[in-house]
Amino acid sequence: MSEFNIIDRYFANATPNREDVLLGIGDDAAVLRPADNQQLVVATDTLVAGVHFPARATAESIGHKALAVNLSDLAAMGATPAWALLALTLPTEQPQWLADFMAGFSRLAERFNVALVGGDTTRGPLTITVQVIGHVQPNRVLTRSGAKPGDGIFVTGSLGDAAMALHIDMQALTGAAADADAWLASLHERLDSPTPRIAAGQVLGPIATGAIDVSDGLVSDLGHLLTASAVGARLELDKIPRSTAFINLQRGVGIDKKTAWQLVLAGGEDYELCFTLPQTGTDSLQGASWPVDLAVTRVGTVTDKSGLELVDNSGQVVSLNDFGLTGGYDHFR
Amino acid sequence: MSEFNIIDRYFANATPNREDVLLGIGDDAAVLRPADNQQLVVATDTLVAGVHFPARATAESIGHKALAVNLSDLAAMGATPAWALLALTLPTEQPQWLADFMAGFSRLAERFNVALVGGDTTRGPLTITVQVIGHVQPNRVLTRSGAKPGDGIFVTGSLGDAAMALHIDMQALTGAAADADAWLASLHERLDSPTPRIAAGQVLGPIATGAIDVSDGLVSDLGHLLTASAVGARLELDKIPRSTAFINLQRGVGIDKKTAWQLVLAGGEDYELCFTLPQTGTDSLQGASWPVDLAVTRVGTVTDKSGLELVDNSGQVVSLNDFGLTGGYDHFR
Repeated sequence: MSEFNIIDRYFANATPNREDVLLGIGDDAAVLRPADNQQLVVATDTLVAGVHFPARATAESIGHKALAVNLSDLAAMGATPAWALLALTLPTEQPQWLADFMAGFSRLAERFNVALVGGDTTRGPLTITVQVIGHVQPNRVLTRSGAKPGDGIFVTGSLGDAAMALHIDMQALTGAAADADAWLASLHERLDSPTPRIAAGQVLGPIATGAIDVSDGLVSDLGHLLTASAVGARLELDKIPRSTAFINLQRGVGIDKKTAWQLVLAGGEDYELCFTLPQTGTDSLQGASWPVDLAVTRVGTVTDKSGLELVDNSGQVVSLNDFGLTGGYDHFR
Repeated sequence: MSEFNIIDRYFANATPNREDVLLGIGDDAAVLRPADNQQLVVATDTLVAGVHFPARATAESIGHKALAVNLSDLAAMGATPAWALLALTLPTEQPQWLADFMAGFSRLAERFNVALVGGDTTRGPLTITVQVIGHVQPNRVLTRSGAKPGDGIFVTGSLGDAAMALHIDMQALTGAAADADAWLASLHERLDSPTPRIAAGQVLGPIATGAIDVSDGLVSDLGHLLTASAVGARLELDKIPRSTAFINLQRGVGIDKKTAWQLVLAGGEDYELCFTLPQTGTDSLQGASWPVDLAVTRVGTVTDKSGLELVDNSGQVVSLNDFGLTGGYDHFR
């Protein structure tokens, strides 16, 4: 199948039409009309087979995830997504794989009104690079660099779910717990089909002082935010939100406490938002526009000391070393 | 080396500063200010090791080419490049390779005032995806779809150079001709370091009726333009510009006429522009803003018949089959 057949069959008309797409797929490049008085927000992320998704991942979940991890970056900037480009490197012609991949990609694109406006299809080891472009109002950009001592530190949803799914798969753990399969399925859903927190990012734009998406793990990503803001933080371990599935499976398959904390603190792949709010900002979260089904939990406080301090529920300082963590994390992967 | 060290060392400050980059490398995404009253033009192209560049290619030439092939797409739209994103998948840590790669990338970025504003670095088989974003004035967009019967068909520079370099390498041809090495070096330069025809595209924006960059070969790319414009063409074989290096090496290493025409007509990788001009438009090319060192040659005429007709210098129709070409070309590679 030629690239042109692939484009016609799988890419053209796969995503919503947008009025601001003046020329979409099919020419040397796309022509787009940026929104008046808005800034552009652009990001790109690559998924490599065997590195960023396991062999068991379905084409549909890969299509979803390739777009989702990019939209998560826009969410962390407070941006509204508009357009995407897809660079797909495939080892062989796999029409069914392509159809499934695009089904996952398109469903998420539909949900966030993202138009696929171009791309490239090449032959080689399975690698997917997506680029997304969105808009944000000036002065509503969320960055990593504005957190101030005294600000509260918050996270959306729950942490550690994706990492636990991966851990259980890799260790081939099984448990006798009732409903273990159902809990595990819900964790796999979190790993395979993360939800970019676009609506939350838009609410946070005007009120948060700092934000980042949790792709590499809370300690690592919060660490980037603290470094960029030149502040420190005190994190209250027991406040960090874990899902019912996580807690039940931890018991059900017998994962020790240290490993469980590693997954929560350093597991990554949850694509939740971690953000900081001044005291005055916290109240504004109660406003109607916060997504109704999205939990938000205060997990700590920004301090004027450098570095990250963990405390347990008695206020005792806990060392990252106790969890086998160094505070550094190489995400060249 | 962590991704953060890589970013600091090789990517940050590697390319020109631009005032319209409000937030560059280092946050979840870049924030950019689009130019007033301009449209955006976006493209992405991937280079895969062993598919799009040979093993002998230097890191510097790969860095150049990864950006150049993308800028060539913007040139074919009449756009002015502004920003780029770089998604780099690397098998191992190779500091020297990265430094050389970025040297090639940065030199070209400098020449066209392109700012690298973000990207992603991942572990895996060597693959490079670049995305570029530029601006174009409304009504100055060059597309493939406006060619009209009677328009002249033109190409910039010369065709077949890159393909001949590749052919000579792959066949391990050698010749006794004086200066064969120097001629071959100049063809390798064309293959490894193509020059995107940005300035030519900008001149053509208001006057050309159709344009495409010659990445897959003249027959294939002109074919796309004709299809998009719903017209045909008569191409005069002997008018198609070949470089002195091409002509000398054809003789020097003994490449038969049929093979030589295959390289010229279907070789690709030259990244010249092929475009159509109404008769009234041809004169305007004489204007001062056409790049002084860039040849432009009329190679044929748009017709109202569908398909591509080749004629020799006596006006006799030549079949594509005579050159072993079918008129179709799979560029899923």
